[in-house]
Amino acid sequence: MAGNTFGQVFRITTFGESHGRGLGVIIDGCPSGLALDLDAIQHELDRRKPGQSNIVTQRKEEDSFELLSGVFEGYTQGTPIGIVIYNGDQKSKDYEHIKDKYRPSHADFTFDSKYGHRDYRGGGRSSARETAARVAAGAVAKQFIATSGISIHAYVSQVGPIHLHLSHEEVDLSKVDSNIVRCPDQDTADKMIDLIKEVRKDGDTIGGVVTCVIKGVPAGLGEPVFDKLHADLGKAMLSINAVKGFEYGSGFAGVEMRGSEHNDLFYQEEGKVVTSTNRSGGIQGGISNGMDIYFRVAFKSVATIMQTQLSVNQQGEEVEVTGRGRHDPCVLPRAVPIVEAMSALVLADHILRNRASRV
Amino acid sequence: MAGNTFGQVFRITTFGESHGRGLGVIIDGCPSGLALDLDAIQHELDRRKPGQSNIVTQRKEEDSFELLSGVFEGYTQGTPIGIVIYNGDQKSKDYEHIKDKYRPSHADFTFDSKYGHRDYRGGGRSSARETAARVAAGAVAKQFIATSGISIHAYVSQVGPIHLHLSHEEVDLSKVDSNIVRCPDQDTADKMIDLIKEVRKDGDTIGGVVTCVIKGVPAGLGEPVFDKLHADLGKAMLSINAVKGFEYGSGFAGVEMRGSEHNDLFYQEEGKVVTSTNRSGGIQGGISNGMDIYFRVAFKSVATIMQTQLSVNQQGEEVEVTGRGRHDPCVLPRAVPIVEAMSALVLADHILRNRASRV
Amino acid sequence: MAGNTFGQVFRITTFGESHGRGLGVIIDGCPSGLALDLDAIQHELDRRKPGQSNIVTQRKEEDSFELLSGVFEGYTQGTPIGIVIYNGDQKSKDYEHIKDKYRPSHADFTFDSKYGHRDYRGGGRSSARETAARVAAGAVAKQFIATSGISIHAYVSQVGPIHLHLSHEEVDLSKVDSNIVRCPDQDTADKMIDLIKEVRKDGDTIGGVVTCVIKGVPAGLGEPVFDKLHADLGKAMLSINAVKGFEYGSGFAGVEMRGSEHNDLFYQEEGKVVTSTNRSGGIQGGISNGMDIYFRVAFKSVATIMQTQLSVNQQGEEVEVTGRGRHDPCVLPRAVPIVEAMSALVLADHILRNRASRV
Amino acid sequence: MAGNTFGQVFRITTFGESHGRGLGVIIDGCPSGLALDLDAIQHELDRRKPGQSNIVTQRKEEDSFELLSGVFEGYTQGTPIGIVIYNGDQKSKDYEHIKDKYRPSHADFTFDSKYGHRDYRGGGRSSARETAARVAAGAVAKQFIATSGISIHAYVSQVGPIHLHLSHEEVDLSKVDSNIVRCPDQDTADKMIDLIKEVRKDGDTIGGVVTCVIKGVPAGLGEPVFDKLHADLGKAMLSINAVKGFEYGSGFAGVEMRGSEHNDLFYQEEGKVVTSTNRSGGIQGGISNGMDIYFRVAFKSVATIMQTQLSVNQQGEEVEVTGRGRHDPCVLPRAVPIVEAMSALVLADHILRNRASRV
Repeated sequence: MAGNTFGQVFRITTFGESHGRGLGVIIDGCPSGLALDLDAIQHELDRRKPGQSNIVTQRKEEDSFELLSGVFEGYTQGTPIGIVIYNGDQKSKDYEHIKDKYRPSHADFTFDSKYGHRDYRGGGRSSARETAARVAAGAVAKQFIATSGISIHAYVSQVGPIHLHLSHEEVDLSKVDSNIVRCPDQDTADKMIDLIKEVRKDGDTIGGVVTCVIKGVPAGLGEPVFDKLHADLGKAMLSINAVKGFEYGSGFAGVEMRGSEHNDLFYQEEGKVVTSTNRSGGIQGGISNGMDIYFRVAFKSVATIMQTQLSVNQQGEEVEVTGRGRHDPCVLPRAVPIVEAMSALVLADHILRNRASRV
Repeated sequence: MAGNTFGQVFRITTFGESHGRGLGVIIDGCPSGLALDLDAIQHELDRRKPGQSNIVTQRKEEDSFELLSGVFEGYTQGTPIGIVIYNGDQKSKDYEHIKDKYRPSHADFTFDSKYGHRDYRGGGRSSARETAARVAAGAVAKQFIATSGISIHAYVSQVGPIHLHLSHEEVDLSKVDSNIVRCPDQDTADKMIDLIKEVRKDGDTIGGVVTCVIKGVPAGLGEPVFDKLHADLGKAMLSINAVKGFEYGSGFAGVEMRGSEHNDLFYQEEGKVVTSTNRSGGIQGGISNGMDIYFRVAFKSVATIMQTQLSVNQQGEEVEVTGRGRHDPCVLPRAVPIVEAMSALVLADHILRNRASRV
Repeated sequence: MAGNTFGQVFRITTFGESHGRGLGVIIDGCPSGLALDLDAIQHELDRRKPGQSNIVTQRKEEDSFELLSGVFEGYTQGTPIGIVIYNGDQKSKDYEHIKDKYRPSHADFTFDSKYGHRDYRGGGRSSARETAARVAAGAVAKQFIATSGISIHAYVSQVGPIHLHLSHEEVDLSKVDSNIVRCPDQDTADKMIDLIKEVRKDGDTIGGVVTCVIKGVPAGLGEPVFDKLHADLGKAMLSINAVKGFEYGSGFAGVEMRGSEHNDLFYQEEGKVVTSTNRSGGIQGGISNGMDIYFRVAFKSVATIMQTQLSVNQQGEEVEVTGRGRHDPCVLPRAVPIVEAMSALVLADHILRNRASRV
Repeated sequence: MAGNTFGQVFRITTFGESHGRGLGVIIDGCPSGLALDLDAIQHELDRRKPGQSNIVTQRKEEDSFELLSGVFEGYTQGTPIGIVIYNGDQKSKDYEHIKDKYRPSHADFTFDSKYGHRDYRGGGRSSARETAARVAAGAVAKQFIATSGISIHAYVSQVGPIHLHLSHEEVDLSKVDSNIVRCPDQDTADKMIDLIKEVRKDGDTIGGVVTCVIKGVPAGLGEPVFDKLHADLGKAMLSINAVKGFEYGSGFAGVEMRGSEHNDLFYQEEGKVVTSTNRSGGIQGGISNGMDIYFRVAFKSVATIMQTQLSVNQQGEEVEVTGRGRHDPCVLPRAVPIVEAMSALVLADHILRNRASRV
């Protein structure tokens, strides 16, 4: 109801504010008997953490986690898995100056409208720091879906006007983490990095697109009406801070195609039904068909800029707002593990939900 | 779990197959005391029904509904509102020939993969006919949200390559229903209609985009983490048959803007906090800010075409599939009331959810 | 949220008022591939229906049902199963005289307090007639759980002060329907029937107890914390009209026993772990242990009596209320299939939920 | 789904094992703006904690809590409130000897049946220690419902065969905590204490009954069909470890009363509709009527006894089990705050749910 829970069977609840005691997540519904690799959780947190390169925020947060429950002798117990990431390098004073001001395109005004007050330090609960908890949970989900042969590969395919001009089938997905912007084509990556540095020098920010490919999904996942697999993936993505759009398969561009071009023809290959094209993006009627699932997620530029902007305060008076502290000029590199985490959570949930589909 | 329910407080469950006894919906959580206009429900069903013009399917379905429960002496009772739309003009025989064939880009193969069998007549539960139940429920939701001053306006802004080159602020939203394609600009509408007729002549189909504007939303609706208002709107849209993408506010195009361009500056006008631009699309941090909410929804071309395509059957053998019966060459005109209905359901739900936000 | 839905995976939503168009239920989450026996549904409705004997209400309602969706060629489809029982023999005029009066121990006053108004005809949504929808759904659930070898046997074990002095292990469960009061011991049944007739002659009503035994439950069903199997069974029973109490296993009487007497000792029999006694009632730590589950449900006397009582009306004025129409002097005989139905729904849900317990 | 979450709007998720890092709870849906008294939370934990008197377990656990999130400058934020109670005085070695044995009437066998393995140390997740998390959450709920004028008063009304022969209206509810057994009548309390000491001396355990009274509930809370207020209270109670039964109002004894005796007659007093008797227990048709809500909860004797019992191990071999460590001879005194906590959670949830009942 208050919307801090995601998923139905593999279900997570996150908690915590950016400048409180810490962030955390309770994973309820992870099946028992999963050999849990804790290092893999830390690895994903490291991919998301601040300060990992010179094109992201320079805040130094270790983002190491503590496991509170749910695992015994290395295996999940079927009981809730509690994970906390304590907050470290907090500079709450950086926020004193915006205590009663509404930063443009932030959640300050809307939080006040909804709740009557807010934790103004670093965005509180609306901070993107909340996604650390999702990444930890997603790292568990990734391990669970791997037991079904599913793997998830996200990468940056656009930063500002710089596009990666290769499809997900043309890039080498193993190269994603080979550069700091997480674009698997080095030439494009270099241009993206240059742009981000330039934007940062201007005290400005820039948006982009993450593409995600999910491989190894068996046919049959997803529910055919409201909880279509792509609808749940779409909601998962749209729940990530700064996301403005989601498209899967042929997406917005595909609307210009006629049915005769757009339809994916079935044929049989090695005893398996496959399609000759994949404009459906691996999902038909809301249910996976065994082909690769792929989608694109649009991230707007970060709202906090190192420039002075006009705004109002809680009293409705005109004020000036200037960003302070250490912020991302571009969230895209750090968004990659978040997109993967949310994807993993959706898949884990639908694997378990699908167990009820037949007598 | 099986995904036939949408919403948390204002919650609907739909049921029924396209060639079964009928389609229906149970609305649970509509507050008591709403004076319900039944004609308004029929009006919305009429906007969605087949055969309403010569650019949509020529199936003749009356889509009149029966109210089963929840209303007494003209007012909602706070009890579940049951609505059934009995199926009339069914030509189940039109489907005998595809009984064991997998139509390209339909849900035939995925249904079989998931459930082991399927109702092949007209797509069964995966038929877009299911959306009639949503439209009926949405018509109730519209009446509820109108008591909060909220109105919803969707229209067709693209058909194939034909774009409406006016923003939602530039068009006359009262003109949407003035032509059969539901594009509020007559010149563009004429071109769209011509294209659809041409496509139909070719036995083919075409996609497009619906734009939706929601006016009068008070600041404070939406939950800040997973159930962001736009995330719930996005899921609602992506759950509609044939939808491939969703973007709100500046959307995919906005990723190229820098923060300094993209940010919406606050100022005060007549004692109300407003923004000078609205790239946020009326939602910041997942919560409405009082400005217009607007978004775009991509619909692919209809999969059923009047041409012969190659496919496989349940035995994996190569077969030919040719569309029969009466189908839409373009779903866009009929998608408009569906987009509005799903939007109304999301808003109704969040109005009620928000009642728990403060002590 | 509005509480017309029960269950998480095998989930039902009921709708309808006693004097509206009809009662109904949507079963969402029944797995596909169940060969559904429609006669078995009617059989359960007949066990619950009014007018079945001379010790229950003499209203004549056929309670025949219409199947709206979810079944094709005799098998469930995994899609929602919609069932409606249209109202027939309605005498709404019987209720005109209590339109603005609050009948003692009915829901009239509380409905008005909650909703501001109510459908006064026959109790509207608070009528026990709502349980017809549950019985229909339960009949589907019974067929599903039978595929796991589970069977449910409820019977009347007390009417007013008349107790059945045999345990559930001592009675012949096949005899439950052999008499009109549904007590498997004929001598006790005769006394119960005599009492009910006497009470009815006095224009009065009487309560009683239903005992329920569930056989064939595999070990492992139930969730260990909030959704303990007996907690869900308890809620299911307490949600039935007129129920005042629930106890399972040793129940209230068991609190006087010491741990050394109460503990059920494990031993092995034919390769299966069993217990020498069964004070646990087949459930330990909220999870079934493979032994018989048994519990008792207390039903108070029906509130509508054929005598004159003092009360107040909506204006708070003192009024007299006298029961009219045809009412049950004792709900116990008709409560038996309702208890079984709700039990079957709980078991069906937990069978499916348990499929997510292990990797 | 996995059942570690309770409530719909005011919703808690608990986590943690008795011998892991700690126990905790996430409260999601507590409205913003509640001035939270942290001492009051500690006070409730102290009422539940081990070692508080010489008739409960002598384990020394401080049960002090850490607040992780959701409160800023003393007020709830509308965001999730995270609370952890770290485990201290753990003697895991006390459990080595029962590592592969099934203790009689514990959850050992059923956990293994469900999950394939278990955390054997102190019962793991099935330990009553989990209720500490509930008590902490309940202490928050108590503060929220107090803003609506609601107060909750539980007490021990039976231990073994020793009954408190006074109704909830006859006892002085302010005296509950005046003795260590939490029975508000000192004479009865003394007898209960003597019995518990005697039982403990025998290495045995004993059960009892907790009675709970809820005062100040406005008319209108509860949902009329499945989520009747007493059904949710019943489930809440039955989810507490060792509970075997629940009855409210007239309960099991009331079934012997005729309708003419049982009905509560309405009259008006100081402009308010009240009833002359209260056999309904403050709830009619599942909805509160403004009178006191009261109910009784049966607790069986603790399964761990200091005597040798026969059982089997995981291999099905006959073994002897003897209790070690420090256990409660009777859980009743410590159950009182747990019953209150769960009651508070149900009321908090229904206050918020009821906000959606009217337009």
